[in-house]
Amino acid sequence: MSASDATALQAQHDALGNKVRQLKADKAPADEIAANVTELKALKEKMASLGLGPASANGSGGKAGKQGGEGGGSSAAASSSKYTLKTPKGTRDWEPLSMSLRTKIFDTITTVFKKHGAVTIDTPVFELKEILSGKYGEDSKLIYDLQDQGGELCSLRYDLTVPFARFVAMNSAEYGNIKRYHVAKVYRRDQPAMSKGRFREFYQCDFDIAGVYDPMLPDAEILLIVVETLDALGLEGFTIKLNHRKILDGIFDVCGVPSDKTRAISSAVDKLDKSPWEEVRREMTEDKGLDGGVADKIGTYVSRKGGRELVEALQADEGLKGHKKAVEGLNDMALLYDYLDIYGVSDKMSFDLSLARGLDYYTGIIYEAVTSASAPPSFVAGSSATEAATAPATTAPSKSAKKDKAAKDGDDAFDESKVGVGSIAAGGRYDNLVGMFSNSKKPDAVPCVGVSVGVERVFAIMMARLREQEEKGIKSDVRAKDVDVFIMSMGGDGQLKERMKVAKMLWDAGVKTEFLYKGKPKPAPQWTAIEKAQTPLAVMIAPDEWKQGSVVVKEQKGRESEEGQGKGETVKVDDLVAYIKAKLASF
Amino acid sequence: MSASDATALQAQHDALGNKVRQLKADKAPADEIAANVTELKALKEKMASLGLGPASANGSGGKAGKQGGEGGGSSAAASSSKYTLKTPKGTRDWEPLSMSLRTKIFDTITTVFKKHGAVTIDTPVFELKEILSGKYGEDSKLIYDLQDQGGELCSLRYDLTVPFARFVAMNSAEYGNIKRYHVAKVYRRDQPAMSKGRFREFYQCDFDIAGVYDPMLPDAEILLIVVETLDALGLEGFTIKLNHRKILDGIFDVCGVPSDKTRAISSAVDKLDKSPWEEVRREMTEDKGLDGGVADKIGTYVSRKGGRELVEALQADEGLKGHKKAVEGLNDMALLYDYLDIYGVSDKMSFDLSLARGLDYYTGIIYEAVTSASAPPSFVAGSSATEAATAPATTAPSKSAKKDKAAKDGDDAFDESKVGVGSIAAGGRYDNLVGMFSNSKKPDAVPCVGVSVGVERVFAIMMARLREQEEKGIKSDVRAKDVDVFIMSMGGDGQLKERMKVAKMLWDAGVKTEFLYKGKPKPAPQWTAIEKAQTPLAVMIAPDEWKQGSVVVKEQKGRESEEGQGKGETVKVDDLVAYIKAKLASF
Repeated sequence: MSASDATALQAQHDALGNKVRQLKADKAPADEIAANVTELKALKEKMASLGLGPASANGSGGKAGKQGGEGGGSSAAASSSKYTLKTPKGTRDWEPLSMSLRTKIFDTITTVFKKHGAVTIDTPVFELKEILSGKYGEDSKLIYDLQDQGGELCSLRYDLTVPFARFVAMNSAEYGNIKRYHVAKVYRRDQPAMSKGRFREFYQCDFDIAGVYDPMLPDAEILLIVVETLDALGLEGFTIKLNHRKILDGIFDVCGVPSDKTRAISSAVDKLDKSPWEEVRREMTEDKGLDGGVADKIGTYVSRKGGRELVEALQADEGLKGHKKAVEGLNDMALLYDYLDIYGVSDKMSFDLSLARGLDYYTGIIYEAVTSASAPPSFVAGSSATEAATAPATTAPSKSAKKDKAAKDGDDAFDESKVGVGSIAAGGRYDNLVGMFSNSKKPDAVPCVGVSVGVERVFAIMMARLREQEEKGIKSDVRAKDVDVFIMSMGGDGQLKERMKVAKMLWDAGVKTEFLYKGKPKPAPQWTAIEKAQTPLAVMIAPDEWKQGSVVVKEQKGRESEEGQGKGETVKVDDLVAYIKAKLASF
Repeated sequence: MSASDATALQAQHDALGNKVRQLKADKAPADEIAANVTELKALKEKMASLGLGPASANGSGGKAGKQGGEGGGSSAAASSSKYTLKTPKGTRDWEPLSMSLRTKIFDTITTVFKKHGAVTIDTPVFELKEILSGKYGEDSKLIYDLQDQGGELCSLRYDLTVPFARFVAMNSAEYGNIKRYHVAKVYRRDQPAMSKGRFREFYQCDFDIAGVYDPMLPDAEILLIVVETLDALGLEGFTIKLNHRKILDGIFDVCGVPSDKTRAISSAVDKLDKSPWEEVRREMTEDKGLDGGVADKIGTYVSRKGGRELVEALQADEGLKGHKKAVEGLNDMALLYDYLDIYGVSDKMSFDLSLARGLDYYTGIIYEAVTSASAPPSFVAGSSATEAATAPATTAPSKSAKKDKAAKDGDDAFDESKVGVGSIAAGGRYDNLVGMFSNSKKPDAVPCVGVSVGVERVFAIMMARLREQEEKGIKSDVRAKDVDVFIMSMGGDGQLKERMKVAKMLWDAGVKTEFLYKGKPKPAPQWTAIEKAQTPLAVMIAPDEWKQGSVVVKEQKGRESEEGQGKGETVKVDDLVAYIKAKLASF
């Protein structure tokens, strides 16, 4: 039992204790709390069996707590200090490993976006309240308002789409044509389910193309970008469901849905990815008062999915071919398939007439990438990541009202019926949103099409993978600390000034380097630091070698112990920078 | 007068119009509004003389507005729509060029931080209100609260230091020893002066080292990091002022300052970088009731600045050498200079006994990097960037109270006396802040030392430089859009599918590529797009060459016209990727 093992157990104990407290504070489901309490108890027993009293047991630190060298210990502080040491409900800290993974995901995604000539913008985290009002239907009640402390009334942004539309409307002369991406946090005062990854503060990662262009060209490129992004993230087995609002409206019209019921019926159709037709039909007829014959007619359409051949079949459909709007939509789809063929991504698409998505924004094609295969079970159901993926869609009032009610009832299962299983990216064409901010005679003066990648869900999937690899002992390229060299003192008086000199030399050469801030460090804590950070190279300074102008460089392979490794290579201090750079380049 | 010139003028006009509206809404100083109105009028006259009616003149778009192809025009929308098209007071949008520069600055800074083995964390944008309470003295009134919509009371973070301390206290077993950086927005409901770069939402860029280590090792490394950071940013001629809280306290004590006046006298001393001694002495004696003899004694100390020789002189000082706290501080300084010598940065330091900074946090060395030479005049006075640089310092109640009063009086000149001229980074040691969050018997159980780089000011300086270069016709490496290839159609039927195929080929190879979303684009808008984005390579597709499996690649040099350039090079489509990659590598 090493000191670092004890510290690690204590850290695990503290983290779990904090989690239980947070879950209780958040009034999480009882079974979730119980599961974590059981885990915490088991850990306490384990620590007790190892002779470690957890620091929180007595508030002043057990053995492990004292070994940490930082006094009190965090869980003691958390349990009895004057402060409630937690983040606000529905929010989280990102610790170093999560940040590394998050950075990697963002870099991967934005590299794809930039490859397509996108610029990025940023907008304030809060907007004038009136800018957000009337954009999110009943979900408006989930908007966080700032307190009225005098001056303007402001609200935290609910998504990145409305601020983007406000920006474009405000600067349309210069930015009326723009391809932009925006990665930033958004805020929803929703019922959090943090164990499922649904947060009140979460990231969205949006790419949008604004401007008047020839039909379907930006749309096709965005679908290509979705494919490239999911490929780059290593998410296998995804499908992009496609549909078109005009086709859907045409179908409802042709089948005889009264126009005042269109929205409600569309919302019912949207559940077909979760519920069987019989249930959806029941909702249409019993809950929403639709004529049974009309529902059956809809059923013959919305059960259909396929590719270009389905577009052609519908173009020949007796009902639809006389409907102007449906014909427009189908012509769009046909042209889109031409372009998708050129881009070589048609086989990733599924033209799926049951895809309805939110109704408030969308005016053209809509899409949703699903990847049930790669999602771990706990993330298959809806989550905040899904909300990120479906940003504009969550504005559908009927759905959100239902969701909110379900949340209040403490029923989290509603997520299942809310969005597609494993939805990982989603979007569509919204031609009238910018127009809502201007008094232009043409509401579609600045048409837009965009996609939102569900980065929180991507993060959850990747983090689960990382943990899995860790358990299997597979070394990941994601490290919390990205440092390449650790400079060790080997005996003598601690070689502090020598270590500082070597560090300065390496820093000047741009090499990521650190050493222990101790005058005379013992070997153990130095090896622990190397192990913990998985630092690939150790530069060892010993009195005798130093006198001869040399140090020893030892390559660290995995987490093997000091003994298991070779003696390292003796390198002249004058050659050290070149040697290290060559070593790092060879990894 | 080209269409793009007209569009540019219109954009300039709209931007200026928006600025004037924002200034008026923010109740900016009258002279600032007047100056911008004058500029706007001049621009309108210029446009009129060129036959361009600004789009805002009639609300439906003049010639320039119509050429934009986006209908209404933003200023029309801004001036008469139902929405007030603006960002909240004290906030701003970051348009693409600013974002490129901002990204470059952040990358430069974080590269230095990471070189020293720092990890990064992130915390929520809001914290529980009680976490922030009692940390900022009278500045607490500048905290943005979220509205009480049921549940916990929360506030937007005021700086990154308190959330960091909360994080460390909450996770001290695992993160009681941590080098972390954090680049994120913070919020202060201060009186904005946007023309001076003082915002209500602004970035901070913090690096801190928490943990128990041997004396002055983390402190010295942080000072080295400040030097490396400012060097990496290309800010010449900076000096880092150094002082030590224990020395300062010792001086006040030895000179006979009553302990209840220490804070007030320290605050007066802090003004010595702006005001002459006579004025500071007057404040001490007349405003703060200090004995004249005591003030004069203080004067003999705080007028002194130098290097290691000053440390030695003070160590021999009859008054100080018997004062325990002063001796501790001087021993720290002597050791610090030893380390700074090893790191080769002692010559950038100025041990300056007049540096006092904020009093609430600091317990050890304090520092402030000043670079008056490189700051453009408008940014020399205090700004939000300065606040970023002085994050913990702004917690000094007496100063902020003064500031707030001055702000309310509409007097912006107070900034001059608030912070050092050209302060660009600042920080110090704060050993007791983490302890405020725990109930540990040892308040300094997790001692910390850190620095905050004034990124908003750095941004302002760099942006001014960029504009200067632009005016001189010097091409910058900062482009709003980072795209390498533009694919052009040259005559024929527009070669849409050919352009898409070539684009797909280049995208697959990771080349940043775009083309116009038009089936049959004319040459002019394509050249405009290339010019605007400063795209280095044009791939031209013409019907005849294409039949022979070739395209023409033309290198774009600067902004010369099409005519001024060579014919370009004919390249086989099969060789295009390799050719382009070699070209790009050669730039």
